[in-house]
Amino acid sequence: MVRPRYSETDQMGYVYYGRYAEYFEIGRTELVRELGIPYSRFEREDGIMLPVIELQVNYKTPARYDDALTITTQLKEPPTARIRFDYQIVNEQQELVVTGHVVLVFIHTHTRRPCRPPRFFLEALVQGGMPGIEL
Amino acid sequence: MVRPRYSETDQMGYVYYGRYAEYFEIGRTELVRELGIPYSRFEREDGIMLPVIELQVNYKTPARYDDALTITTQLKEPPTARIRFDYQIVNEQQELVVTGHVVLVFIHTHTRRPCRPPRFFLEALVQGGMPGIEL
Amino acid sequence: MVRPRYSETDQMGYVYYGRYAEYFEIGRTELVRELGIPYSRFEREDGIMLPVIELQVNYKTPARYDDALTITTQLKEPPTARIRFDYQIVNEQQELVVTGHVVLVFIHTHTRRPCRPPRFFLEALVQGGMPGIEL
Amino acid sequence: MVRPRYSETDQMGYVYYGRYAEYFEIGRTELVRELGIPYSRFEREDGIMLPVIELQVNYKTPARYDDALTITTQLKEPPTARIRFDYQIVNEQQELVVTGHVVLVFIHTHTRRPCRPPRFFLEALVQGGMPGIEL
Repeated sequence: MVRPRYSETDQMGYVYYGRYAEYFEIGRTELVRELGIPYSRFEREDGIMLPVIELQVNYKTPARYDDALTITTQLKEPPTARIRFDYQIVNEQQELVVTGHVVLVFIHTHTRRPCRPPRFFLEALVQGGMPGIEL
Repeated sequence: MVRPRYSETDQMGYVYYGRYAEYFEIGRTELVRELGIPYSRFEREDGIMLPVIELQVNYKTPARYDDALTITTQLKEPPTARIRFDYQIVNEQQELVVTGHVVLVFIHTHTRRPCRPPRFFLEALVQGGMPGIEL
Repeated sequence: MVRPRYSETDQMGYVYYGRYAEYFEIGRTELVRELGIPYSRFEREDGIMLPVIELQVNYKTPARYDDALTITTQLKEPPTARIRFDYQIVNEQQELVVTGHVVLVFIHTHTRRPCRPPRFFLEALVQGGMPGIEL
Repeated sequence: MVRPRYSETDQMGYVYYGRYAEYFEIGRTELVRELGIPYSRFEREDGIMLPVIELQVNYKTPARYDDALTITTQLKEPPTARIRFDYQIVNEQQELVVTGHVVLVFIHTHTRRPCRPPRFFLEALVQGGMPGIEL
């Protein structure tokens, strides 16, 4: 659950449209944390960066200051060098606020080249029940 | 020209992916200013809000702190109740940083219903040379 | 508890110094919520705005992405037309991250003039045990 | 000159109070650039970080979307391991928007210990006319 901060509103009285990128980031951080992995582990231990290469947001109902928003994050396909997260955000009245998706790419910090996802992540996905992953 | 601020970088050393929404906003503000219209006139005089209903960003090359970025904003079609801006951002080396687009909708502040673009804006577009506009 | 978002880090690898203003805002929102008042009630029902007139932050230890930060917010004196919140933020190791304070002023939305705090807020403070308040 | 972005306003219709930290950052970046030094040179060439250890802002008149703000940044004393910048921001009507100051500390990136300012910076200050600097 995320409550928009005052700083995240704009003078229309709504959450600024660019802020949803941050909510999407929270969604994937929490999805990965539920797999038992702190997101920071990618960078700290494995020398992997995860820059975003695509962002899409469709805005349905404006969110307002202090609304109780629920972010649903889904990983529909096993990751390759790319990983895609699909999002839905709803408010307390179960109205759809936004839908969207983000595509990130696994990159070696030193070589700056795309790479396979780290083994610890693929194993966590297998244990979490995601089908179709090659270890 | 926009120079990314220190606050806009993240710990990867790149501009945070959500910040491009702000650069796109700068792009359309400046495009409208070049037509002789302060963007704030929509809200102040005409009781019109312009919430965003769609955002798409494709990330090509990371931007860094203090890079000299050039934002190109294009209005390819005459606006209806919706208006779409297409974007390209390049760095000093003329490398493509991002492409993307934003769709906004003209809404009456009081009724919160979609409406036609204000006449002063359509006239400015005609004078600016955009074809296909009905006044 | 607040976990810094990736967007809140900068290329030093620390939370950007301006972001603590947002954490302070969360602190006072939650303090007021614990008194049984949604912060938005000031604006919605009573036509009161609470702009900030002073901000002070002293930075002790940098915070990093995804740290578990605890924000302590204190109201040391009864509010007049002004209200001051004092802050301490510590990390999981109980290291002091920042200290600071914020002063806000109660303003009538229509007249834009300073005013007394709304009665419902003073009553909630009395019930919450704050001494020295005149109702 | 800085024009507040739509993203920088909040639902009061003013620039969010935490955003001035970014305007202050722009002020010192530009002051240093006028000395002929890109701010990024501290980090890139000299392995020096400049974290902020103190921020003070006093808010006088609210700034609004697209106002033309002028930031005046002053270095009143020669830097030691610490450097203090004093700020004034005024709007087009020459009204004082905020005053404030920021103190930063020169730190070696590797040792994370305070250090003297790099020689190229002290030399630029001497050439720029600042008295009282030991080279």
